[in-house]
Amino acid sequence: MSLPATMQASVLLTPGTIELQEVPVPAAGPGEVLVRVTAVGSCGSDTHFYETGAIGDLIVRGPVVLGHETAGEIVAVGDGVDHTRVGTRVAVEPQTPCRRCEFCKTGRYHLCRDIRFYGAWPIDGSFAEYVIVDDDFAHAIPDSMTDEEAALVEPVSVAVHAARRGGVTRGSKVLVTGAGPIGVIVAQVVKSFGAAEVVISDPIPHRRDFALSHGADVVLDPAEADLDQYSEYFDVYIDASGNARAVQSAFPTIVRGGTAVLVGMGGNTLEVPIAMIQHREITLTGTFRYVNTWPTAIQLVASGTIEVASLVTGRFGLEDVEKALMQSKTDPVAIKTMVIPGHRATAPATAGE
Amino acid sequence: MSLPATMQASVLLTPGTIELQEVPVPAAGPGEVLVRVTAVGSCGSDTHFYETGAIGDLIVRGPVVLGHETAGEIVAVGDGVDHTRVGTRVAVEPQTPCRRCEFCKTGRYHLCRDIRFYGAWPIDGSFAEYVIVDDDFAHAIPDSMTDEEAALVEPVSVAVHAARRGGVTRGSKVLVTGAGPIGVIVAQVVKSFGAAEVVISDPIPHRRDFALSHGADVVLDPAEADLDQYSEYFDVYIDASGNARAVQSAFPTIVRGGTAVLVGMGGNTLEVPIAMIQHREITLTGTFRYVNTWPTAIQLVASGTIEVASLVTGRFGLEDVEKALMQSKTDPVAIKTMVIPGHRATAPATAGE
Amino acid sequence: MSLPATMQASVLLTPGTIELQEVPVPAAGPGEVLVRVTAVGSCGSDTHFYETGAIGDLIVRGPVVLGHETAGEIVAVGDGVDHTRVGTRVAVEPQTPCRRCEFCKTGRYHLCRDIRFYGAWPIDGSFAEYVIVDDDFAHAIPDSMTDEEAALVEPVSVAVHAARRGGVTRGSKVLVTGAGPIGVIVAQVVKSFGAAEVVISDPIPHRRDFALSHGADVVLDPAEADLDQYSEYFDVYIDASGNARAVQSAFPTIVRGGTAVLVGMGGNTLEVPIAMIQHREITLTGTFRYVNTWPTAIQLVASGTIEVASLVTGRFGLEDVEKALMQSKTDPVAIKTMVIPGHRATAPATAGE
Amino acid sequence: MSLPATMQASVLLTPGTIELQEVPVPAAGPGEVLVRVTAVGSCGSDTHFYETGAIGDLIVRGPVVLGHETAGEIVAVGDGVDHTRVGTRVAVEPQTPCRRCEFCKTGRYHLCRDIRFYGAWPIDGSFAEYVIVDDDFAHAIPDSMTDEEAALVEPVSVAVHAARRGGVTRGSKVLVTGAGPIGVIVAQVVKSFGAAEVVISDPIPHRRDFALSHGADVVLDPAEADLDQYSEYFDVYIDASGNARAVQSAFPTIVRGGTAVLVGMGGNTLEVPIAMIQHREITLTGTFRYVNTWPTAIQLVASGTIEVASLVTGRFGLEDVEKALMQSKTDPVAIKTMVIPGHRATAPATAGE
Repeated sequence: MSLPATMQASVLLTPGTIELQEVPVPAAGPGEVLVRVTAVGSCGSDTHFYETGAIGDLIVRGPVVLGHETAGEIVAVGDGVDHTRVGTRVAVEPQTPCRRCEFCKTGRYHLCRDIRFYGAWPIDGSFAEYVIVDDDFAHAIPDSMTDEEAALVEPVSVAVHAARRGGVTRGSKVLVTGAGPIGVIVAQVVKSFGAAEVVISDPIPHRRDFALSHGADVVLDPAEADLDQYSEYFDVYIDASGNARAVQSAFPTIVRGGTAVLVGMGGNTLEVPIAMIQHREITLTGTFRYVNTWPTAIQLVASGTIEVASLVTGRFGLEDVEKALMQSKTDPVAIKTMVIPGHRATAPATAGE
Repeated sequence: MSLPATMQASVLLTPGTIELQEVPVPAAGPGEVLVRVTAVGSCGSDTHFYETGAIGDLIVRGPVVLGHETAGEIVAVGDGVDHTRVGTRVAVEPQTPCRRCEFCKTGRYHLCRDIRFYGAWPIDGSFAEYVIVDDDFAHAIPDSMTDEEAALVEPVSVAVHAARRGGVTRGSKVLVTGAGPIGVIVAQVVKSFGAAEVVISDPIPHRRDFALSHGADVVLDPAEADLDQYSEYFDVYIDASGNARAVQSAFPTIVRGGTAVLVGMGGNTLEVPIAMIQHREITLTGTFRYVNTWPTAIQLVASGTIEVASLVTGRFGLEDVEKALMQSKTDPVAIKTMVIPGHRATAPATAGE
Repeated sequence: MSLPATMQASVLLTPGTIELQEVPVPAAGPGEVLVRVTAVGSCGSDTHFYETGAIGDLIVRGPVVLGHETAGEIVAVGDGVDHTRVGTRVAVEPQTPCRRCEFCKTGRYHLCRDIRFYGAWPIDGSFAEYVIVDDDFAHAIPDSMTDEEAALVEPVSVAVHAARRGGVTRGSKVLVTGAGPIGVIVAQVVKSFGAAEVVISDPIPHRRDFALSHGADVVLDPAEADLDQYSEYFDVYIDASGNARAVQSAFPTIVRGGTAVLVGMGGNTLEVPIAMIQHREITLTGTFRYVNTWPTAIQLVASGTIEVASLVTGRFGLEDVEKALMQSKTDPVAIKTMVIPGHRATAPATAGE
Repeated sequence: MSLPATMQASVLLTPGTIELQEVPVPAAGPGEVLVRVTAVGSCGSDTHFYETGAIGDLIVRGPVVLGHETAGEIVAVGDGVDHTRVGTRVAVEPQTPCRRCEFCKTGRYHLCRDIRFYGAWPIDGSFAEYVIVDDDFAHAIPDSMTDEEAALVEPVSVAVHAARRGGVTRGSKVLVTGAGPIGVIVAQVVKSFGAAEVVISDPIPHRRDFALSHGADVVLDPAEADLDQYSEYFDVYIDASGNARAVQSAFPTIVRGGTAVLVGMGGNTLEVPIAMIQHREITLTGTFRYVNTWPTAIQLVASGTIEVASLVTGRFGLEDVEKALMQSKTDPVAIKTMVIPGHRATAPATAGE
């Protein structure tokens, strides 16, 4: 197959301005592969970059292509990569660690100080027709998996990492706050880790409804329900809301010796009930992306153990990336929007389509 | 040996009032032993109970004997206890769990909801001539260990538990804030766990000096020294100060994936740098007393691996418990005072005596 | 409710001779409960005791009641036990540890040197109308669980312990050798722990068929199938056969860094491929009964996560214990027989009845 | 500094024949450094390769330079390597993993199927003036560390890995069989991990004497001493002998729940007391080289925590590699011989020189 010289890419120029440009197709260097993008999920962090130009220490200082929930097909390989990989459909793990530091060599490459993230300036992401990936971070998927499912392996990976950090195991009782895309995936994933009971809390009714059919045994409205009934109850608490009050109200529900894992990003500081944490020997930690999660996440989706396809509530072409980024903020029932290079807008997609 | 019918006990009647009383010698029930007290350390929590009548949820609602850092000799045994234990010198672990709940059966008996603590109302402690202990919580000590060292096995246990909770292992770099009795014992204990580098911070010069000869490789004055030089440096951080600012200033020094263990009790809430905790996947937890630490702590002291005898800076009889409790607050160079039944006040003891 | 003074019990007098006797109903001591037996599974170890009078170090030196897979209802409580427990339906954990040794206090009470096992001389088991159990080892079951399911919580516990010892987690690939009652329960249990792929090997066709519908993704005939296709493949290997050749042939299939857990009892010694174990850093261990497994096992059965009812292929009254013990040896399609006090023999039970 | 075009290298041509040759100085490729060799330890595996041409699956199929316990100085760097590393004295970790497989990415790069070992055909080792190493496997050492100590970081790494695999921690009781170089280093290393008691067994008196001054609390002669006194005693057992009878006799001394780690290579198979392993839930495993051990091992030697300099009992130039390889077999008091490029033979070195 001969590759084109140029491709379409949706380039973030300044906060609030994305432009569809014709740019050169990048070339795969040693150990890299070139992936033709087939589906890219739109993530809240993309929207945040788009609107503000920064997330914490990550600041957009020049034009960059966003997008890091990527499915595609390998169309070319660089030096040292097995040529038979061409044609392989893949789910992309959007990070490149240095492979040489103490974090990389002790199995924690996500903590590498020199890691490069896709879709975070200056590393281009996937709102484009092609993207470059390190060979071993382009994970093969089975034929039965759709492109959109492959793209959603990324948020599934977030949840797998959270479940591992929380030590979820057979019989765990788990509380999740926040029933957005991450929350409902977390609910399903902890179930697949053997959780015996999953309670999820969210103020929005249709999110609670969705959660009930996606992993949650019980759903709560934080405005109504009394978490007091769960005093010292949950082995693992996972926040997927980034909401300070949600997190604070969850501590009394954690069993002695239990664990709290904060996935959602909120403020820089948080007031925590430290005496309770000490007396009950609660472990509080957070997650930073994921590490070594793709194989597990792919198996979960491919085997049908968890269901993610129905999370998709909108599909857009590369020319409509801005719409894709904003829909989940503006559309009250939107959950996850997909950018699909070549997609032609027709009737609006609906949940579970 | 015939036991007396009554004994002297220093009874806390109301906050601020301790009275030496003649009370019945308690009888050892099934599975219990009667210990003749030979030395009892005075702990900051005793002082707090004495002054305020409460520590958090633990409230003194009636007369109680304080004191829980106890050395002694078994003088009688209850039903079901091996009679040959009479005459055994022991270090007392001052807690009695239910032995039947999920915490007790999973090796975390210190988290037992029905645990009874010595020296916390309504369970009498050791500022008395005799005290009752569960057989297996009266841990035999070797002849070479002094009574005072045996009493100090209790704070050593606090440190052993903290080192375990922190995952201190061969090569760990450890920061300790607070160079009081617990801080300097923690410094020594983490060294014995294999810590490669121990830095301790305290605003008081003579405490820093003492720490330098007791486990610390480096001492810092928080008012002067710049912890910035230790950015993302320490594998384990252990607070032994209970000071909120000390804790907050320590977070940036913790390496990605590192652990913070709060031993010192401060306020009920604490503002923590949660985004940093998340991004660096720092684990934050606390300790609640100790569990399964006595054998290790006894071995550490008995083998001379750690040195605790020189912590003792004052000795008092049962009639002077109030002085013992207040000396470490009022005497700037006091570290640890001992209550020794039968002790006759002479010249003041000095550090390292 | 008034209790009778005597009860029927099936007493093993000498190897090969069990006699139905009228004996006193035992009284619950402090911390104990009296359980009216409703169903007892017959285990291979019971059969072995019956036939030979010994299993390893455990030797029957006097009359004893066998049976340790027990369901029942609490009908009386001893001193110190909550009276409201009377009437509670329970699954019995058939062991009583000392609760005071280092093993008991570190969460490994099954390794207690003074543990007493039900149905192992001199401790009577459950082939009787009533049996005494420590309060906290009589685990409450939900109304929805049948007596037979409650009895089968014991073999489920064996499997839960094996899964834990093997470190089975989300995504594990697991090989099981032996598709008897334990093997098929192990297959289901490791699935519930998140195993992504379970392969089970057994020479008997109908056992393989049963396994395929109970947790196994793939079944193999060791006489035919080539385990070579699984070179360095399985994360966890669990033997439930006790067969030396089965175990030996499994080692090459274990992935580097993987774990082998031997549940089945075979000979006293075994020749293992030690250079392979070293080069691949395989971990080899075994299981000794179970520890802290009942809550998890009850939840697995009660929630329908695993299915055990169809394992029962025969039911017998107390007068027919010998038949119950021998059926699984003599009847080629028998899997698990139940002893049910008061059972009246009718038509033979069949699998899945 | 200008590098020479050629260098001296001791090349193994066929089993039993090593020839000093003048060969090209290799060039550092991307990510690699060129190290001028200053000291190389002679290892039993080198001697085995020299004598037989193979160790297990590793077979010498062409000329190769042996030697993998290497100290040196970086004299040139390849593309992508920080130039300021030139001049750095280093201890060499003699392996190069693929950095991309599941083992490499989960912190177990020593289990990488594509790992390349130094001094194992076709990868040249260090019995030469220069050697190529991956940048991050050339670990900087402090000025205070001698070249010979830096070379001995390799066997220290073997011991560190064994201590980790055994879970040695504060208070562990450890048995070591075999007091050769690895055994005595293991004894010291487990002490540094916090072992409370180290017993070492070896049939050779002068090895036992050496061990007593290097970490062992107690030494035993297996021909005389009765290991029965240690029934179910040791938390961790580490074999450094490769002797089947030594290993078999050690099992009864391991405490319930304890661990056996086999470091010494013996036969391909071993008969183990499997029923004991099962009943006591002993964990049996082995070690394959080391992973992530150099920083810890360097710190242990540099801090003086362990003493290795006195292990050296002979020094040889590159022209005398064969003598170096055979001395520890033929000289009864030899422990470890060093090859030092440029060394001029003078009077024989003696232990502790």
